[in-house]
Amino acid sequence: MRPFHLLVFFVLAVVACGVPQGSGTMPEVEGIDFAIAIHGGAGTIDREMNPDLEKAYREALEDALRLGHGLLEQGATSLDVVEQVVRRLEDDELFNAGKGAVFTHEGTNELDAAIMDGATRGCGAVTGVTTVKNPISLARAVMEASPHVFFTGAGAEAFAEKMGLERVEPDYFFTQRRWDSLQRVLEREEDRGSNAEKHGTVGCVALDRSGHLAAATSTGGMTNKRFGRVGDVPVIGAGTYADDQTAAISCTGHGEQFIRNTVASRVSALMEYKGLTLAEAVESVIGDVLQPGDGGLIAVGRDGAIALEFNTEGMYRGAADSSGRFEVAIWE
Amino acid sequence: MRPFHLLVFFVLAVVACGVPQGSGTMPEVEGIDFAIAIHGGAGTIDREMNPDLEKAYREALEDALRLGHGLLEQGATSLDVVEQVVRRLEDDELFNAGKGAVFTHEGTNELDAAIMDGATRGCGAVTGVTTVKNPISLARAVMEASPHVFFTGAGAEAFAEKMGLERVEPDYFFTQRRWDSLQRVLEREEDRGSNAEKHGTVGCVALDRSGHLAAATSTGGMTNKRFGRVGDVPVIGAGTYADDQTAAISCTGHGEQFIRNTVASRVSALMEYKGLTLAEAVESVIGDVLQPGDGGLIAVGRDGAIALEFNTEGMYRGAADSSGRFEVAIWE
Repeated sequence: MRPFHLLVFFVLAVVACGVPQGSGTMPEVEGIDFAIAIHGGAGTIDREMNPDLEKAYREALEDALRLGHGLLEQGATSLDVVEQVVRRLEDDELFNAGKGAVFTHEGTNELDAAIMDGATRGCGAVTGVTTVKNPISLARAVMEASPHVFFTGAGAEAFAEKMGLERVEPDYFFTQRRWDSLQRVLEREEDRGSNAEKHGTVGCVALDRSGHLAAATSTGGMTNKRFGRVGDVPVIGAGTYADDQTAAISCTGHGEQFIRNTVASRVSALMEYKGLTLAEAVESVIGDVLQPGDGGLIAVGRDGAIALEFNTEGMYRGAADSSGRFEVAIWE
Repeated sequence: MRPFHLLVFFVLAVVACGVPQGSGTMPEVEGIDFAIAIHGGAGTIDREMNPDLEKAYREALEDALRLGHGLLEQGATSLDVVEQVVRRLEDDELFNAGKGAVFTHEGTNELDAAIMDGATRGCGAVTGVTTVKNPISLARAVMEASPHVFFTGAGAEAFAEKMGLERVEPDYFFTQRRWDSLQRVLEREEDRGSNAEKHGTVGCVALDRSGHLAAATSTGGMTNKRFGRVGDVPVIGAGTYADDQTAAISCTGHGEQFIRNTVASRVSALMEYKGLTLAEAVESVIGDVLQPGDGGLIAVGRDGAIALEFNTEGMYRGAADSSGRFEVAIWE
C-alpha cells in the first residue's frame, strides 16, 4: 500500500470511529482538588423580579454555596456536603423544597428527595413525605440504614420515625406565597409566578478531596399536582445520579421529560460509553435530547469540571471550586 | 511520514477508538418481522419442584407467549401486545404480580407496574396500588391519558377510578400460598419458597411488524416488604426501558441492584453509545455490572434479536419470533 492510500485509510478509520473514545479521559480542569455546584430550580424566571427578592435569592444561593465550599475545604466527604447544602436550601422558603414546598391539588405538601454516592452507586430516595423536615436526610437514611433504595408515603414516614429524624406538623410547610400560587392555579387565572417556583427543585453535586462524587436533589413537587404524581427527583437515573467513574448530576425542570429520557444517567453513559467530556455530554443531553424549555442540570465531573446548563430562561445556580471560583447566577 | 510510521499511527488510532462504533448496526438476526420475550421472575428456583407445579408454570408461560405471538402475527402493536401479555400473567396466581402478588409486612398487597413505548419513549408507572386488578393497564393509562409518568398509592387509585379501570376488593389478591410464605418469613423460619416467587416480577418485551418496540413489567413487590418500599419495576430505566433505536428491556430480581445500576437503560446506552450488539450489552450488564444472584432480564432488539440472560439459578422465561422460534424454559 502506498503512503497516500494509507493516509486515506487512516483518515477514514478515524472518521468511522466517530467521536474519539479517549477524549473523556483528557482532564478538562487542571489541579482541581474539590468542586461544588448547586441549583434552586430552572424555568421562566421573571427578569423584572422585585430587586429585594432577587437579592434574597442571590444571598441564599451564596450562603448555601459558601457552606458547601467551606466543608469541602475542610475535607468533608462529598456525601456530607451535598446533604448539608440541600438541607440549607430545604430550610429556606424561597425554594420549592422542604419549608418552601408548593401545594398539591388537595392543599397538602408532599415532598420527594434522592441522594447518591458515586463511590458505591449506593442511593436512597423518598416520595410523598409530609412530616419530615428534611427529606434529603431521610433519603440518606434509606441509603445507609436500610437494605432498600426507595420508600414511599406513610411507609417512608414510619421509617423516619424509626430512624429518629426530625418531624414537623404538616402545617410547617405552609407558606402564604405557595398557597396563593395554588389558589391562582385553581382559579385558572394565569399564574404569574415563575415556572422555576412552580416546578422547582433544589440540588447539589460535589467532588471532594478524596476524589469521590455525590449528588442530592429535593423538591416539593409541582403546584396543583394530583394522583400522587411523582417527578424525576426520586427516580434514580432521571433527576439524580452519581458515579465516581464519570460525574455527579442533579436535574431540575419538567420532571416527566427527565424520566422518559433518563437524563442524569444519560450524561454519565455518554461519558463512560461514548467518551464525551462532561461539557459535551451535558450539552448533548440539554441541547439535543431534551426540548427547549424542559429545564436544566448541574454536574461535576471526576476531574472537577463543572457544568451548569439549561434550556429555559433561567436557573438559580452557583458553582465553586478549590481554584477560587465562586459564583452565583439566575439568568444567562 | 514514511509508510511504516503511517501504518503504526493507523493501528494506534484504531486501538484508541476502542470498540468499533458501527458494530451495533450489523443485524444480528436476518429477516425477523416480529419477536417477543416474557419472564415470570428470576432467582433460586428449586430444581426439585413438584412436577405438577413445574408443568403449570411451563403451561402458563406457553399460554402467555402464544397470546403475544398470535397478536404480533396479526399485526398488533408492540404496546398492545406487552400490555395484554402482562395482563395474562397478572391474572395467573402462579406469578408475583396482580392476582398472585406477595404480601407486605402488614399483610397487604401493594402492586407496582410500568410500561414504555419505544417509538416515543413515552412511559407510565404506578406504585403501591391495592385495588386495581391489572396494574399494567393503569400504567398505560398514566402514559396515555395524563401528562405525567408516575403515580403513587391512593392518588394512583383515584386516577384508576377516574379512568374507569377494573377495581377489586383488596382481598382479591389473597392467595393461601403467598400468605403462608409471609407467615414463614415472619416466624423467621427459613423460607423454602423460591426467591423468584418472593421477589418475582412478570414482564414482556416485543418488536412488532412496524418495527416498534415496547416493554412492560409488573410485580407484587417483595414478601414482607415494609416502609412503602419500591423496587426497580416502576423506576423507568431501572426495571423497564424501551427505545426504538436500541431495544426493549424488562428486568427481574434484586430490585435495589437494578436501580443503583440503571440496568434497563444501561443496556440501551451500551448499544447506542458504545456500539455493542444486544447480546454483548446484555451480557456485559448481567455478567459484569451486576453481582451473581442479582437477577435477570429479557430484551428484544430493533432487529428482532432476543436476549434472555440471568445470573441466578433460574428464570421463568419464554421467547418466540416470526421465524418459528417458540420456547419456554425455567433453568439453564
